[in-house]
Amino acid sequence: MPAHFQLLQTDSTTAARRGVLQTRHGAIQTPIFMPVGTQGTVKAITPVHLREIGAQIILGNTYHLNLRPGSDLIRELGGLHRFMGWDGPILTDSGGFQVFSLAKLRDIREDGVAFQSHIDGAKLFLGPREVMTIQQNLGSDIAMVLDECPPWPCEREACARAVERSFRWAKQCKEYATDSGFLADGHHVFAIVQGSTFDDLRRQAAESLAELDFPGYAVGGVSVGEPEPEMLKQVGATTPYLPANKPRYTMGLGTPPQLLKMIALGVDMFDCVLPTRVARNGLVFTPDGPLNLRNEKFRSDPRPIVEGMENYTATFSRAYLRHLTIAGEMLSGTLLTIHNLHFFLDLMAQARTHIEQGDFGSWHQAWIGRYEAGATARLAGSIQ
Amino acid sequence: MPAHFQLLQTDSTTAARRGVLQTRHGAIQTPIFMPVGTQGTVKAITPVHLREIGAQIILGNTYHLNLRPGSDLIRELGGLHRFMGWDGPILTDSGGFQVFSLAKLRDIREDGVAFQSHIDGAKLFLGPREVMTIQQNLGSDIAMVLDECPPWPCEREACARAVERSFRWAKQCKEYATDSGFLADGHHVFAIVQGSTFDDLRRQAAESLAELDFPGYAVGGVSVGEPEPEMLKQVGATTPYLPANKPRYTMGLGTPPQLLKMIALGVDMFDCVLPTRVARNGLVFTPDGPLNLRNEKFRSDPRPIVEGMENYTATFSRAYLRHLTIAGEMLSGTLLTIHNLHFFLDLMAQARTHIEQGDFGSWHQAWIGRYEAGATARLAGSIQ
Repeated sequence: MPAHFQLLQTDSTTAARRGVLQTRHGAIQTPIFMPVGTQGTVKAITPVHLREIGAQIILGNTYHLNLRPGSDLIRELGGLHRFMGWDGPILTDSGGFQVFSLAKLRDIREDGVAFQSHIDGAKLFLGPREVMTIQQNLGSDIAMVLDECPPWPCEREACARAVERSFRWAKQCKEYATDSGFLADGHHVFAIVQGSTFDDLRRQAAESLAELDFPGYAVGGVSVGEPEPEMLKQVGATTPYLPANKPRYTMGLGTPPQLLKMIALGVDMFDCVLPTRVARNGLVFTPDGPLNLRNEKFRSDPRPIVEGMENYTATFSRAYLRHLTIAGEMLSGTLLTIHNLHFFLDLMAQARTHIEQGDFGSWHQAWIGRYEAGATARLAGSIQ
Repeated sequence: MPAHFQLLQTDSTTAARRGVLQTRHGAIQTPIFMPVGTQGTVKAITPVHLREIGAQIILGNTYHLNLRPGSDLIRELGGLHRFMGWDGPILTDSGGFQVFSLAKLRDIREDGVAFQSHIDGAKLFLGPREVMTIQQNLGSDIAMVLDECPPWPCEREACARAVERSFRWAKQCKEYATDSGFLADGHHVFAIVQGSTFDDLRRQAAESLAELDFPGYAVGGVSVGEPEPEMLKQVGATTPYLPANKPRYTMGLGTPPQLLKMIALGVDMFDCVLPTRVARNGLVFTPDGPLNLRNEKFRSDPRPIVEGMENYTATFSRAYLRHLTIAGEMLSGTLLTIHNLHFFLDLMAQARTHIEQGDFGSWHQAWIGRYEAGATARLAGSIQ
């Protein structure tokens, strides 16, 4: 059997990697950004729009989909791909993170997490078997193990307990996925490395999970409130201990500069609600930092959001997009989501090209420099 | 110069007509339904979606667009077609109707209507010159004259005054459109026949406006609260006095059966927010009457909304569309709008075919019979 992940190239001045990940629904060129489709739709756009802007893989949220409409129903209707009309790869999270952030009255036990639905208060339980069954029902191409994500900051002892429990759950998840034939069918299961700010706990978690030989690894417990330098430090303290021949994924981040910094640390996969969420409030990304289209200065601006970007939104003027946003029209959310996701996907495409060309190190620093200079200048009101 | 409207065929058993209306942005096959794009967008969908479902012409609202973002700005940016990315024909209303329904502190004078913006309270004025200037700024293919729409019910004397005033305003609108070169450039201006429930006033209005030789005529003052039989009676009391070689348009209606009944009375053009507005609340049209997708019975229904209809929404199950609607996802509004508009546009296409085949009379009665039987049965809870 050929390896499901092929490492094509590694950058000489950073840890950036260029790879290809094979899934049941096609190959993914890495580094890659995954648009988030929480409730069975990437908010405000269609699967056709996703294809047009080059999306290779999207993310679905197990917690949400299992509460509504239910993973049994989705299985009965042919799986999540067919349900939502997306025939490319889908990664699903385990649902554990949302139990911690959204659910009421959660109770962490050795065998899993008992909680109440945030929608109707129903009493529910997620353990390793449950999260794997749900993700199997959804037909996920990449399923995530159940883990315990410690808060930031946290005490060392509590963190160590979370790491140990997460290891046991990961092991059980892999066993269930093996026994059920999920792995043998070409689905992937990724482990998640916790450890908060404790480098030795992160190393220990990474090395012990690596021994279990998962198809991929996520760096978890980042982007949970810690400052950016701390986040980068944690990722940098983890990736060296992950197997080079497996894809690496940081969950739930980040800004465009953060993505590039993560790639430089050897991360291959990202997901974040940032580009879709802010689009619905009129914020758009450009190489010179974000723009708030509600600003009066765009009132009669005939230019597209970013000159030279080719997507459907680029056929409209900033003035029109501002009008739609101010008028509260749904089409604003659709068009700005198309732009923002394309911007993130295009940034990943540029990163892949520069890793291939061997100049990722200098390119990504220059890119971040321009982006942050533009954002700073705009904050200071000095850019027209 | 060839006639801008060609009457291809007239039905033998009803007054239904099959025609072609030429505009600066292409030909329109009538009878036709015009999706409403109040604020420079047909709510929730893109111009590409509009094309895919066969939209031939859309409507823009002068009152809204002139308040926000302003017709001067739209002219500066190349006109409404370019502004909103729609290169097909656009009809705009005069704005008068919204002044009556939305604006605060309106004051009808002989020279026009003074009012306050419903958005920011700004004091504004619309007279014949203003409405024609605004519609010229927008680059409208079909502009409507300013008229006074009497309420239902209304006294005969008040109605007669409104008819007379509307006639004078229509005459002035045509003079401005002639002097400015708007008509000579191939734009059309349609007159509006008022007269409320008074047959003789409607006839008088139709005949006097017909003498002014407008490119088209609307039956106004219907769908303003009167019962359906009264509405049909008013349209039936108007169309016989309109020139046969000009298109006829009833503004702001209606349900699918109403559209067919209007076609049978000799009406060619329609617009209504019904299909787009109810789509955003989960209501969809079928040949067996409307369905509320929020209903529990669609929870696991794998069928498309209407078997055999070919559009993007038809690639999704009722179960998925119900899920999106219940979850409050924007994509629900988009997909249900695509379906509902396609349903209305397809109904017009069927009507055109049956007029051509010579069996419109029996076909439209059978169509209405099935639709109303389905709706009645569903209300009674007897359809699964």
